[in-house]
Amino acid sequence: MSKHKVIYDTDPGVDDAMALVFQALHPDIELLGLTSVFGNATIETTTRNARLLTARFAPHVPVAQGAAAPLKRAAPEPLAWIHGDNGLGNIALDASHEAVAEAVVETRSAHRFIIDTVRAHPGEVTLIAVGPLTNLALALAEDPQIAGLVKQVVIMGGAFGTDGVLGNVTPAAEANILGDPDAADLVFGAPWPVVLVGLDVTQRTIMSHDYLASIRDRGGEAGRFVWDVSRHYEAFHEQSAHLAGIYVHDSSAVAYVLAPHLYTTRSGPVRVLTDGIAVGQTIQKPSTMPVPAPDWDSRPACKVCVAVDVPGMLALYEDTVCGTLPAR
Amino acid sequence: MSKHKVIYDTDPGVDDAMALVFQALHPDIELLGLTSVFGNATIETTTRNARLLTARFAPHVPVAQGAAAPLKRAAPEPLAWIHGDNGLGNIALDASHEAVAEAVVETRSAHRFIIDTVRAHPGEVTLIAVGPLTNLALALAEDPQIAGLVKQVVIMGGAFGTDGVLGNVTPAAEANILGDPDAADLVFGAPWPVVLVGLDVTQRTIMSHDYLASIRDRGGEAGRFVWDVSRHYEAFHEQSAHLAGIYVHDSSAVAYVLAPHLYTTRSGPVRVLTDGIAVGQTIQKPSTMPVPAPDWDSRPACKVCVAVDVPGMLALYEDTVCGTLPAR
Repeated sequence: MSKHKVIYDTDPGVDDAMALVFQALHPDIELLGLTSVFGNATIETTTRNARLLTARFAPHVPVAQGAAAPLKRAAPEPLAWIHGDNGLGNIALDASHEAVAEAVVETRSAHRFIIDTVRAHPGEVTLIAVGPLTNLALALAEDPQIAGLVKQVVIMGGAFGTDGVLGNVTPAAEANILGDPDAADLVFGAPWPVVLVGLDVTQRTIMSHDYLASIRDRGGEAGRFVWDVSRHYEAFHEQSAHLAGIYVHDSSAVAYVLAPHLYTTRSGPVRVLTDGIAVGQTIQKPSTMPVPAPDWDSRPACKVCVAVDVPGMLALYEDTVCGTLPAR
Repeated sequence: MSKHKVIYDTDPGVDDAMALVFQALHPDIELLGLTSVFGNATIETTTRNARLLTARFAPHVPVAQGAAAPLKRAAPEPLAWIHGDNGLGNIALDASHEAVAEAVVETRSAHRFIIDTVRAHPGEVTLIAVGPLTNLALALAEDPQIAGLVKQVVIMGGAFGTDGVLGNVTPAAEANILGDPDAADLVFGAPWPVVLVGLDVTQRTIMSHDYLASIRDRGGEAGRFVWDVSRHYEAFHEQSAHLAGIYVHDSSAVAYVLAPHLYTTRSGPVRVLTDGIAVGQTIQKPSTMPVPAPDWDSRPACKVCVAVDVPGMLALYEDTVCGTLPAR
């Protein structure tokens, strides 16, 4: 098969880093570039981290800096208690990688990079977006026609309640969507194929402490990095959710691209609430719902992941990082 | 055990009628009165139906007429395509019952009846509310102290997504809550014990065509009535949801009162969205959620039903109507 040509829109972020390693090591993904966005940390931190990560795991892949704040709101506070002060779980950052990173700095803005890259590969580019959706909204605003030229947009974001929750930052909102609800509502309303990989599946997919230790022991440098970068993050999960492991958020979007058969999806338009106490909530009208709903009915259907083959997803990640993918 | 002293706040309505039969025939329930409310039909129709139902199945139980419209909005259109033009599935209504009904007309308004009855039996009254919550909100507004005098408030209403949906009238809202979202938000915020029996459990509980036929054949006059009144309703389910049976909405609230062990609940404050595209949506902050949420945190916890023992619920209803409850 031909490789998935991917632009990875990201706010590293611990799980962003783990998902970058996943993409860099899987033979079916060709990373065309990273675009950074505010979210888990400031845009300066996420951009720096994206460059360090590519220097180490995906050399020569360009990183374009993106939005520092949402379309219509102030930038949120960095989530240091989740991702560490440096956005990468407070691991020591290797200065030698900074020099490498300097060599491939992309000077275009993230949304311009998205537009140009999509237009250079019409019908071929998959956008994997795992932070606030500001860059994608800016790209659509500047060049709406790219919606018809993108292969698919796979987003880690949202929550639809089937897992028992509608949000992780508020009772109604998941972090990435709450990061820029106006952008998210624009992105879900554009005529491109959107897949939402939200808490309904990412909170059901848990990498246990033992699973991560196995990757550490079997995965060489990458496995060691996955372990190191996730120590602070695992402690956060232990403290906040009494979980002996970590939720698999961003890597689930990558897994969907590689192996969509692992996910059950539900089709229908998705709206985002942009004000009120539930701001940032994602609400789908399933295509099977028989009643009219004017605020949804004029918009294209998105696919929302509602179930996941957890062992299948976890095996895919581990085999990728440890180099034990089955031969095909 | 002492009986449950119940005020049944209702907008009959087919499933309201089925739940009235359930309460009238179960030996552990003492019906103190019915209070009518707009909803499935106009207040004139629901009040007339409530009186016909009590005349036939619960003679001498008073019916107090309640609100004709929501607190702050216009009355919705009757749901004739669901409940029939007469609110009772278009069955022939027996004029002989009207004379009986006339004899026990209660002249107090519904909310006044609730206040007086709760104050007459402090700590003993269970409110079972299966329509828009306007009467309860009016009672609270006129006499806030009743909140401390009610045993519990068991409400058929709301949806929390665990069943895959957040609403049945819109993608976000269940019918009873959407009927008066302002009232619902007041009721859920008052300091009385509230249990929400919503779509998460009522749409998982299905009375099949064969189940209803069995009740028809075994349940005498009441069983025959349950069958007759549900024909139009079953056709609606067949047409709209391709369901060979009916969802058990209002009777599930009665079942919770009689047998709470059949239900799994989740505790936490519940808010109702009162404007925007998701008006009428119910959102709980589960008590296990670690993040602060000021719009929820100052309010009392409600219990939300998230799972149900379906065979147990169906057996309870059938045994009640057919007079085959196990001896105790």
